[in-house]
Amino acid sequence: MNRVTLKQLADILGLSTGTVSKALKDYYDISPETKRRVKELAEKLNYVPNALAVNFRTKETKTIGLIIPEVVHHFFSNVIKGIIEEAEKLNYLVIILPSNESFELEKKQLNLLVSKQVDGIIMSLANKTIDYKHINEVIDKNIPVILFDKISKLVKCSKIIIDDRKAAYNATNHLIKTGCKKIAHIRGPLEPQNSIDRFLGYKKALDENNIEYLSNFVYTCDEVSFEEGYQFAEQIIKDHPDIDGIFAITDLVATGVITKLNELNIKIPEQVSVIGFSDWFLSRAITPSLTTIYQPGLEIGKNCFSQLIKEIQFKKNNTNYNYETITLPTSLIVRNSTKTI
Amino acid sequence: MNRVTLKQLADILGLSTGTVSKALKDYYDISPETKRRVKELAEKLNYVPNALAVNFRTKETKTIGLIIPEVVHHFFSNVIKGIIEEAEKLNYLVIILPSNESFELEKKQLNLLVSKQVDGIIMSLANKTIDYKHINEVIDKNIPVILFDKISKLVKCSKIIIDDRKAAYNATNHLIKTGCKKIAHIRGPLEPQNSIDRFLGYKKALDENNIEYLSNFVYTCDEVSFEEGYQFAEQIIKDHPDIDGIFAITDLVATGVITKLNELNIKIPEQVSVIGFSDWFLSRAITPSLTTIYQPGLEIGKNCFSQLIKEIQFKKNNTNYNYETITLPTSLIVRNSTKTI
Repeated sequence: MNRVTLKQLADILGLSTGTVSKALKDYYDISPETKRRVKELAEKLNYVPNALAVNFRTKETKTIGLIIPEVVHHFFSNVIKGIIEEAEKLNYLVIILPSNESFELEKKQLNLLVSKQVDGIIMSLANKTIDYKHINEVIDKNIPVILFDKISKLVKCSKIIIDDRKAAYNATNHLIKTGCKKIAHIRGPLEPQNSIDRFLGYKKALDENNIEYLSNFVYTCDEVSFEEGYQFAEQIIKDHPDIDGIFAITDLVATGVITKLNELNIKIPEQVSVIGFSDWFLSRAITPSLTTIYQPGLEIGKNCFSQLIKEIQFKKNNTNYNYETITLPTSLIVRNSTKTI
Repeated sequence: MNRVTLKQLADILGLSTGTVSKALKDYYDISPETKRRVKELAEKLNYVPNALAVNFRTKETKTIGLIIPEVVHHFFSNVIKGIIEEAEKLNYLVIILPSNESFELEKKQLNLLVSKQVDGIIMSLANKTIDYKHINEVIDKNIPVILFDKISKLVKCSKIIIDDRKAAYNATNHLIKTGCKKIAHIRGPLEPQNSIDRFLGYKKALDENNIEYLSNFVYTCDEVSFEEGYQFAEQIIKDHPDIDGIFAITDLVATGVITKLNELNIKIPEQVSVIGFSDWFLSRAITPSLTTIYQPGLEIGKNCFSQLIKEIQFKKNNTNYNYETITLPTSLIVRNSTKTI
């Protein structure tokens, strides 16, 4: 059985499509008897309203787009969950497209979302994104865009972020307070603002504690993976046998570090302390459990959606508004991979 | 600047909307000069074709729906990745909706997707789903549906699965081959077919090895969580101090088991061997690393999409077709939480 159309209902009942449509929506100018007949038939034939047609009239699709760098990723999964939970409450649908950290794919996905006429777009930049023309063009078309996590100051739009520099400062400072003096940093790629900020937070903590910053204590990830943490851990021990602390850009990398140090029978935290960033699920489960910075993924997702909806409404009502940057709090989670103070 | 419409282009150029539309699509009956003028203006004004209008004519939305029980979940993340990677190649969009393991929410999401006129739907059943009328109604409306992972034999549609019974048999058999004789099973809830099948595979391995099946060696999860594994591990040791093997329904639960056994200073695998199911990322990173069954999430996602597209095409061409059940292979991954044979 194919889907029943409004027109078929109208034909069967000998009514106009307009009358049928109004009856289904309980318009006051349709008689109760007509409403009853229409609704009975609609139910009998399993009629489902044509959502696209509704969208045509309101000029809204009640659909938003979400571009994320990586789908299989604890932090981004939480952001997705936060966005779709909020979207559901307002009956918005979310189209999720991955950029796989590729600049080219990010551009393609953005154009696809625009061509599908989503009401707004939420995105986190790919690691390989080096210019922002594609995003600024979308904003110029008056389509609201919200950036989160991996943002650029060169895009003029609202942003939902954490204070990466402060959080990384706190992480590094915790290592120093627990007695670490030779601290390596496994950083993210050179482009993303959050990887720059976490590096600067690390550097600031060293400076304020009169520990000399040495560039050969910094290792740069390309993919920000478990494998890179695993490999850099071995390299760090080789380059600096007296290392006593490692601050990794994310828990995934830190988990690779812990796995390798365990294999090398290096005691954590007695010989080397390890701190991560983001509080992934696995950080509770590894041995030793990982001290880290909690990054509120669910709340970031929820804030992205509510900010986007605000801007969609402003735009609909032709209200001027200012872009907002919302900074959500992080916190230090002390577990067993660092020493007690 | 608001989005430019086809009509605005037509008005500016003094052409009909039909001519502008044809020019943009390179129809042979439009002169090269007209095509040039139209395309130049379209580019200048950043014109983006109205996708919804195209959909209206072809009666397709080039959008599919995906309902999954839990978003923050390693296995489902991989399935999502597989689906959207394939969808992207054919320019399909994927709307992802969570059921949060709730029967009511699953019904609501399914209706939402139907009302949005998606071309087809891929779904894995919620743990709390107890009847299948809502899905059979969608299938009766001639909308292709593919079930994966958590399926029901009572829904007549194509399915992408693994042989859960055989895989669980292999997992339990591996424990027995490495010397375990008293093996507990932490199973999933009573409804989902995959949790029933994994339990039956466990039972069959015991039977074939002449190990008595005892119902008080089986513990039933409600949420299939890390916390449940953590709590059941303590309960199992209390109930059966001589236990020597634990087979957990997923790696998440097994990880909870390992964390608790480590806390209790019970040696894995010398005293108690642990085997999981699914091969989550964290299984490599915990100590000891977890022996498990590899469940091919990415391939399941890819197969779901390709089967769905086949059925969408069949339906479009009014071709009759039979539902297919595709069973993908699993494999045993031996790590350090089980003894060597």
